[in-house]
Amino acid sequence: MSKPRSEELEQNPADASAEDRLIATYFRPLATHPGAFDLADDAAAIAPPPGCDLVLTTDGVISGVHFFADDPPDAVARKALRINLSDLAAKGAAPLGFLLSIGLPADLPAQWLPFFARGLREDAEHYGCPLLGGDTDKNPAAITVYIAALGAVPHGGMVRRKGARAGDVVVATGTIGDAALGLLLRRDAAAAAQWRLDAAMRDHLTGRYLLPQPRTAIAEALRRHARAAIDISDGLAGDLAKLCRVSGVGADVAVADVPLSAAARAAVAAEPALIEAILTGGDDFEVVAAVAPDRFEPLRQEAAAAGVTMTRIGTVTAGEGAHFRHADGSTLAFARPSYSHF
Amino acid sequence: MSKPRSEELEQNPADASAEDRLIATYFRPLATHPGAFDLADDAAAIAPPPGCDLVLTTDGVISGVHFFADDPPDAVARKALRINLSDLAAKGAAPLGFLLSIGLPADLPAQWLPFFARGLREDAEHYGCPLLGGDTDKNPAAITVYIAALGAVPHGGMVRRKGARAGDVVVATGTIGDAALGLLLRRDAAAAAQWRLDAAMRDHLTGRYLLPQPRTAIAEALRRHARAAIDISDGLAGDLAKLCRVSGVGADVAVADVPLSAAARAAVAAEPALIEAILTGGDDFEVVAAVAPDRFEPLRQEAAAAGVTMTRIGTVTAGEGAHFRHADGSTLAFARPSYSHF
Repeated sequence: MSKPRSEELEQNPADASAEDRLIATYFRPLATHPGAFDLADDAAAIAPPPGCDLVLTTDGVISGVHFFADDPPDAVARKALRINLSDLAAKGAAPLGFLLSIGLPADLPAQWLPFFARGLREDAEHYGCPLLGGDTDKNPAAITVYIAALGAVPHGGMVRRKGARAGDVVVATGTIGDAALGLLLRRDAAAAAQWRLDAAMRDHLTGRYLLPQPRTAIAEALRRHARAAIDISDGLAGDLAKLCRVSGVGADVAVADVPLSAAARAAVAAEPALIEAILTGGDDFEVVAAVAPDRFEPLRQEAAAAGVTMTRIGTVTAGEGAHFRHADGSTLAFARPSYSHF
Repeated sequence: MSKPRSEELEQNPADASAEDRLIATYFRPLATHPGAFDLADDAAAIAPPPGCDLVLTTDGVISGVHFFADDPPDAVARKALRINLSDLAAKGAAPLGFLLSIGLPADLPAQWLPFFARGLREDAEHYGCPLLGGDTDKNPAAITVYIAALGAVPHGGMVRRKGARAGDVVVATGTIGDAALGLLLRRDAAAAAQWRLDAAMRDHLTGRYLLPQPRTAIAEALRRHARAAIDISDGLAGDLAKLCRVSGVGADVAVADVPLSAAARAAVAAEPALIEAILTGGDDFEVVAAVAPDRFEPLRQEAAAAGVTMTRIGTVTAGEGAHFRHADGSTLAFARPSYSHF
């Protein structure tokens, strides 16, 4: 069932500038970079910071896949931007700006876009990451929000997945698994009672699914201290395994050392099998990194000074794969080690 | 109807690396830039060319909106890349690379992705625009292909929409309206007979809709000679009006001087009302530019040397709006001056 341009055109007669007005009203206020030309050109032009490499990443969210169609529109916007900021942070890069491509169904409620734009503007300001340009389309089937983000590191300074060495310390920021549990709660509210969570714990978990906290504040510290890093989007187990594979190493993680929130601890106490969702569920948007032993403490302190908890969870080995061990030495076997779209 | 991550996860058990394998198989061969790290990292890192500004643009195509779901997958890939290359060309920028975000339905035929990737690889090589990174998602509802492209111009050298002055020559590349007529033919094959087109003419028009020809070859000439330019995606009339609005000028275009292909001339001879579709239909991906009178001939010659026809179609005025006049002085009034998604 095709619905090509001219057919839409017939459904939207007369007003040639509705799309331009939409952009001017909702998105121009975010385009504070002079090279965005107030979004009144085909492209942005930016002078890269001297001596820097550009760090480029892209990630998108689709309604019904990465978020629920009835999620608050400002949270959808924030999530779309923050998952890209999370990539930049894990790579040690400072944000420079972003491009936005949105596809919106015709039957979107009138208030959706203003709230979406407000959330995006607040985050763009908060993280110092202005809108540089974009593309706005009608999408008959789903809300799609794709962002391409640009950051900068000193030349050659991007923190890669590759670079971990046997003997390095494996560290993780924040707490792991909250978003995965939050998603389970979002789909089955009754689980909160089964897991014996109070309202604050439940809200903590669903909030962590709704709104990632990119670790932008420690990008610089990671760049100076980490040998390799990755942001956790597809689950700690799978993403650490990716880092290990590219680095040609293995990792031993002590399950008991993986940092959990009070809510996640309560849930896993009530239902121990949840540890798999916690370690493999994804959407954490924390950072897991490999750090030379003598750099762990400086990194931990700088992260703490920036308000980010950094926990030692294991050790890089000369083996392969990411292994998660209980205190008795037994290894967890995951049915689904990592999120994959395919 | 939400279908969040964990639900998909349940439908795709066990194989953690199917997404990684898909990327490695189909997209790694396109990631020839060393800063793409063989797509085995979260982000790309590129050292911008010294003394250059980065030119950034993003544009996407959605099945059922910008292309037909049964269009050849290699053509879908080429179109997605080329509409971005067209933006870079009109801005005078040389391509550096691109980021790709694709959303694919689960029921896509097995051969779709290999052909898509092959078309994309051939174009990436042909235009010297390597894949730098990307994002691959399952999209339940439509095929979505978003590209963010990077180019470079000498510092301050981007050709803007703003800059046209009264007295400038208005020029257009190639031929106008073919893609709009091609889309009409794609939707109503019987029109070819009504328009008295032979098979070659019909194929020319449908081919121009299917496969844009970005004017990459004249980017450098535009940068040196044009005062303002825009690529024609939403129709000559509307896009020239945008250039005029931002430049604070008007434009007078002689309809008889607008370059038409033999096929378009035949169609409009048979059905004169098609001139509106030709001038407003969009998807031309030609360039319309304002050029100082003494720069027109050098630009025309350099474009010709690069294999691109450049035609004088009118004059920039001190007025406002883009006006299209017949030889008798009467002005065309368009029911729908420009394509708009909203």
